[in-house]
Amino acid sequence: MSERKFEPMTKAVVIAAQRAWAKYVTERDVDKLLELYDFGTPDEPLLFKPTLADVIRLDRAGAKAYFVGGDPNYPNDEGFLNRGWKRVEFQSAAGPILKAGGLGYKDMGHYTFVDGDGNATRADYTFAYHKLNGRVLISLHHSSLTWLPPKES
Amino acid sequence: MSERKFEPMTKAVVIAAQRAWAKYVTERDVDKLLELYDFGTPDEPLLFKPTLADVIRLDRAGAKAYFVGGDPNYPNDEGFLNRGWKRVEFQSAAGPILKAGGLGYKDMGHYTFVDGDGNATRADYTFAYHKLNGRVLISLHHSSLTWLPPKES
Amino acid sequence: MSERKFEPMTKAVVIAAQRAWAKYVTERDVDKLLELYDFGTPDEPLLFKPTLADVIRLDRAGAKAYFVGGDPNYPNDEGFLNRGWKRVEFQSAAGPILKAGGLGYKDMGHYTFVDGDGNATRADYTFAYHKLNGRVLISLHHSSLTWLPPKES
Amino acid sequence: MSERKFEPMTKAVVIAAQRAWAKYVTERDVDKLLELYDFGTPDEPLLFKPTLADVIRLDRAGAKAYFVGGDPNYPNDEGFLNRGWKRVEFQSAAGPILKAGGLGYKDMGHYTFVDGDGNATRADYTFAYHKLNGRVLISLHHSSLTWLPPKES
Repeated sequence: MSERKFEPMTKAVVIAAQRAWAKYVTERDVDKLLELYDFGTPDEPLLFKPTLADVIRLDRAGAKAYFVGGDPNYPNDEGFLNRGWKRVEFQSAAGPILKAGGLGYKDMGHYTFVDGDGNATRADYTFAYHKLNGRVLISLHHSSLTWLPPKES
Repeated sequence: MSERKFEPMTKAVVIAAQRAWAKYVTERDVDKLLELYDFGTPDEPLLFKPTLADVIRLDRAGAKAYFVGGDPNYPNDEGFLNRGWKRVEFQSAAGPILKAGGLGYKDMGHYTFVDGDGNATRADYTFAYHKLNGRVLISLHHSSLTWLPPKES
Repeated sequence: MSERKFEPMTKAVVIAAQRAWAKYVTERDVDKLLELYDFGTPDEPLLFKPTLADVIRLDRAGAKAYFVGGDPNYPNDEGFLNRGWKRVEFQSAAGPILKAGGLGYKDMGHYTFVDGDGNATRADYTFAYHKLNGRVLISLHHSSLTWLPPKES
Repeated sequence: MSERKFEPMTKAVVIAAQRAWAKYVTERDVDKLLELYDFGTPDEPLLFKPTLADVIRLDRAGAKAYFVGGDPNYPNDEGFLNRGWKRVEFQSAAGPILKAGGLGYKDMGHYTFVDGDGNATRADYTFAYHKLNGRVLISLHHSSLTWLPPKES
């Protein structure tokens, strides 16, 4: 059903989008953050599995609930931005990779969130990006706490 | 820039690839399993974050290590297939979604692995697929244990 | 001929309706559950073939009888909700698919109902949805126990 | 992605399509039978849950396997047509019902298959139909053995 025209984009703008994401997380600016996501079309929604959540989000309301909490439809959401992250560090595994067909990039790696007390939370991410009407947008986001090897006893 | 020619594909073959993945996992057939992945080109490698691993895999050796273990480069890999999974059940969040440009699909959801003792391991997945030389291949795989809400005390 | 005005809807709201259905089944909330169905017009009724029933339901009374039992018109209905389901898991075969004309979605797949003793009942479902006056409603529901291959002797 | 133009159709042609389906089943004419199905577009496939099968079919190969068997991808398929059905009797629950938007019909009911020895197999069906390029086609088919109330002991 989509008649949306995707545009070629560069690796440089992926990095810029990544920096913007980190900036808005630390500024707790949920509106700017949500503007980075493409919620898609009725038939081709965003796919978003947040770090601290077990329910996948397909629309703006679900994504917002994760970031700020307080939505009765997502009772486990405590508001990721409320944790007061001071720093987000991206470590891409291979840098942004062109997607099949050459429209858009995918990127996978680790990121670390550091809060005001200096506590670090390590997670793994996958982001996919495309460009639409001149804007670089996140079309897929899978984030998960980094797996820890079982402790030897 | 890739000169590989990606072909249009259907939602039905995504489902078939998903079933094949589950089948080879339960059959512990690592060769067939690895044939489902596209390890890409030097500049555009596979992106694979396995469920029980903290190291992202970009090539065949890394993927194989995860599935069968025993590779000194990946000392935490105990061999995912060695767990003797009897059943894999996929629960896609929204079904396969066409990627920007219409070449390939992405799919996100939950899957459950059940071992011979009936123990279930729940995880979240993102798979991206494209088609090359008539073969449907996994171009990205992010898998992570399902997040659990903190227990109330 | 219907003069009801159907509205465009999204894949995300189909998923939300599916989650709501599962929630109300586990909460044994028959009123909320019935509100998810569109009982239609005299000439275009709901079509509902329940899992554990051989009589197709075309109206609210028939649907309610299936869920809570005790209706002399449906003597085989023991009340599906009375089984005390603790969990419902959906496995869509291909995700929601747009219907001809683009108004509404259809979805087919497997679902599993797990009761308080951990017993699982596997069934196949077809749900069709449309949107009317801002509400996403089930217009057709066919559910059936999963077919089992005959055991080898 | 679909640019297919669906056409208005009548209840009478639904009945004709139903009769054709029954005719080709008794004639064991798999090609004519498969021509009654719309296998859809890459992104909007057929949804087909056959009576004696636990695997949902999304394409022509899967549907054919069910009807004639012998496909290694569907090891439980023994070939529905091979059972030598002599008669198929349709009992619609409410007659064909217009779908939302008025393009296409849905129909739910019981049907009985009688073989050469006079043995009857009762099943429940849902068929959805639409019209494309002047042809009336099945877009969804869910079939299941009729549920039997547990025997009193």
